[in-house]
Amino acid sequence: MTETNRWTQKRNLTMLTDFYELTMANGYLKHGMQDKIAYFDMFFRKIPDDGGYAIMAGLEQMIEYLNDLVFTERDIAYLKSKKIFSDEFLDYLKNFKFSCDVWAVPEGTPIFPGEPIVKVRGPVIEAQFVETMILLTINHQSLIATKANRIVSAAQGRAVMEFGSRRAQGYDGAVIGARAAYIGGCIGTACTMTDRDYNIPALGTMAHSWIQMFPTELEAFKAYAKTYPRGCTLLVDTYDVLRSGVPNAIRTFNEVLLPLGYRPAAIRLDSGDIAYLSKAARKMLDEAGFPDCKIVASNSLDEFRIRDLLLQNAQIDLFGVGERLITAASEPVFGGVYKLSAVVENGKIIPKIKISENPGKITNPGAKEVYRLYDRDSGIALADVITLEDEIIDDTKPYEIFDPVHTWKRKTLTNFKASKLLVPVFKKGVCVYQSPNIQEIREYCKRQVNTLWEEVRRFEDPHEYYVDLSQPLWDMKDQLIRRHSRP
Amino acid sequence: MTETNRWTQKRNLTMLTDFYELTMANGYLKHGMQDKIAYFDMFFRKIPDDGGYAIMAGLEQMIEYLNDLVFTERDIAYLKSKKIFSDEFLDYLKNFKFSCDVWAVPEGTPIFPGEPIVKVRGPVIEAQFVETMILLTINHQSLIATKANRIVSAAQGRAVMEFGSRRAQGYDGAVIGARAAYIGGCIGTACTMTDRDYNIPALGTMAHSWIQMFPTELEAFKAYAKTYPRGCTLLVDTYDVLRSGVPNAIRTFNEVLLPLGYRPAAIRLDSGDIAYLSKAARKMLDEAGFPDCKIVASNSLDEFRIRDLLLQNAQIDLFGVGERLITAASEPVFGGVYKLSAVVENGKIIPKIKISENPGKITNPGAKEVYRLYDRDSGIALADVITLEDEIIDDTKPYEIFDPVHTWKRKTLTNFKASKLLVPVFKKGVCVYQSPNIQEIREYCKRQVNTLWEEVRRFEDPHEYYVDLSQPLWDMKDQLIRRHSRP
Repeated sequence: MTETNRWTQKRNLTMLTDFYELTMANGYLKHGMQDKIAYFDMFFRKIPDDGGYAIMAGLEQMIEYLNDLVFTERDIAYLKSKKIFSDEFLDYLKNFKFSCDVWAVPEGTPIFPGEPIVKVRGPVIEAQFVETMILLTINHQSLIATKANRIVSAAQGRAVMEFGSRRAQGYDGAVIGARAAYIGGCIGTACTMTDRDYNIPALGTMAHSWIQMFPTELEAFKAYAKTYPRGCTLLVDTYDVLRSGVPNAIRTFNEVLLPLGYRPAAIRLDSGDIAYLSKAARKMLDEAGFPDCKIVASNSLDEFRIRDLLLQNAQIDLFGVGERLITAASEPVFGGVYKLSAVVENGKIIPKIKISENPGKITNPGAKEVYRLYDRDSGIALADVITLEDEIIDDTKPYEIFDPVHTWKRKTLTNFKASKLLVPVFKKGVCVYQSPNIQEIREYCKRQVNTLWEEVRRFEDPHEYYVDLSQPLWDMKDQLIRRHSRP
Repeated sequence: MTETNRWTQKRNLTMLTDFYELTMANGYLKHGMQDKIAYFDMFFRKIPDDGGYAIMAGLEQMIEYLNDLVFTERDIAYLKSKKIFSDEFLDYLKNFKFSCDVWAVPEGTPIFPGEPIVKVRGPVIEAQFVETMILLTINHQSLIATKANRIVSAAQGRAVMEFGSRRAQGYDGAVIGARAAYIGGCIGTACTMTDRDYNIPALGTMAHSWIQMFPTELEAFKAYAKTYPRGCTLLVDTYDVLRSGVPNAIRTFNEVLLPLGYRPAAIRLDSGDIAYLSKAARKMLDEAGFPDCKIVASNSLDEFRIRDLLLQNAQIDLFGVGERLITAASEPVFGGVYKLSAVVENGKIIPKIKISENPGKITNPGAKEVYRLYDRDSGIALADVITLEDEIIDDTKPYEIFDPVHTWKRKTLTNFKASKLLVPVFKKGVCVYQSPNIQEIREYCKRQVNTLWEEVRRFEDPHEYYVDLSQPLWDMKDQLIRRHSRP
């Protein structure tokens, strides 16, 4: 894949922004604040489906967006027509060049509520302006990667394919959603464009209409098997799975494939009671001498239905998962937010906080880092700690972590390794990060998820992974809250 | 807006297709079936959120896609690399030209389960190939237009703005989703690109970060009011709505706006208990002499929460609705399907059916039309009737409709007007339909929804609108089912 193949690079997405980013920008310029340096964090508050972890995804597309930021003549003309922006501001936009520093958590990393997953530092107009697209990009892909990881986990080692383009929420929902599903662990997609542009294997065989176009199901199967003897998969539920579909498939395997020197790949079930039908079909295939013929199942599947099918010993080798994956149907929103955390005044970082009646909505102030602490012997992730930017967690010494709400819950860690989660992505507007290829990201995700306790990976009522604040950060936050609560 | 501004036209979406469309196409060519004429219907089975009706949307983008269908050299090279397509097929794709007839229901029309909303007739390879994108386009926009219409209906005449870009499922989810939300009745969007490209008004003011960038809330408000004295809206929940936000807003109105000769537009609440806060803020604004200052509320709203807020007499003039609208969060899938309904053999239309153990999944066979029957006096929509293509419903004579399941339920209509729902969109691959502008579509939608019984428009447990089959269609379907059920 070359850079020019990429889906988002063909479009200038600069204007995909909430209108208030522009009204604020114009205001900052008017008030001479354009060079004021601000820090923003992207973080999220809740893991979808009440899961134990989420999966970071979308960084590659976020980088493309930031690299391509430019206001065209047409954009300027459009903004001028709104009659609320100053000429000075329109000139500013003509010469706009992104110059911020950006850090982010690499794609495929398990992430948890409250911790910064993207951090931006730079002139406030720029650092504010990119809010909408950073959120949109990371929220969407993290949502789908997280859902895919849950579904793949429920399949217990069986393969999961992404099949949902036709029910996706828009074109990017399909194409880039399939990319995120692959990061989360799917083995491929039905979406041809995702294969072409992201090098993610696309597969597909036939619709019911293929069967219906021929006088009989048997003729349709035979025509297909002659065309695709290698990897032949037949859809057996157009008329009657057990009385027509499977017998005709077996006859096709015997009469077309074997004489050509091929073994069948699979049959596919797309309706009816998949548990019952797969067991009956398995028996028929085995008895006919095709124990190697796999069974593919699809039909409004998700992690819950797959778990139940497997509990009933359904004989399924590959799951095709469509609408409930590509829209993350059970909880279709990843609620990432982008909040000001600090401003620089006279060279000093001044922490900023957003207060809320709801304590969970109070932000973590200051310029921050995130450390993940792993047990040195087992490699298990023990906790994440959010610190101030100038703190260093020295993993050669014991380190005390504590619950940020119930602060008497304390624990001293020894024999641990501390890794920073955020890596530099842009320095003064120049990209300094090279995304791994998509297969590497997928493998990295698998390894990283395996560093989590099994109890955290459970997909219902999981153990809550620790995301703690360092003592200096906790103290700073506490002081700021107290200051704002006594007006 | 000129044609070249359109969002989808900048991209060649030909390869956004399920891979099986290509394997089938290659197979049809191999078996000499490429000129066989087939009929396909798009229809859906269930209204999201168990509502009483859905809203058709996405036709304009579907037309752009069909107009732009072309396989590039790069596409051909990619397909060749898959090593399963014949050279003859790759040549066929190089010269591919869409030549089908297409009919569709105009955007903004209320639509119901089971009825064809898009109908395609043409060479089977072409008519099959466009399945994925027709479904993706219409499913997505109809989903969002339907959800928007529910939310707008819950707001009982108060304005609803679409605010969800940052939580949308991908870039098209945001941009085109906002278009669909406007069709469904929103008054505008926060998405700048949707305004630029689709002429849908974008609005926006400030984020909490604007407030935090200034030493005090009052200074932030005053700076904003000086920049935007006309239509000034202030976000009042950064620190404390009633003790700080609203008093500072009132002071800003008095000290900045009035001296400049302006009245305030609104205050905005984005957190906390919106019902309580809006009532208290209303009182404060009224007492301060600003009864004309409106109150805007946002915070994970949807039709259910809006209904409850209004039941509690919340003082809200405009609702900003984000993630729950732009993802249709309560049911984020519009389940449209695309099924073969007939093939032409020796000039004769041969109906085709897909059988299922689940009676609701059995398709309606044959080349069909859909009529909507309106009462001539009240203009109320009485029923939709699906007929065979060569039937005509003569509305000068009484017409008997009947329930397709409980066939003893019959009713004779008189004094009605019959309108065909499907309009010609392509004739032999040439577009013959001019989309109305987006404001016209939105107005049309409003008028059409008003032709439905109030009982059908109820958003929980609505009356089920009649979608019946004509006697000839019912008889044909019954015969085909019986034929397939006795193998």
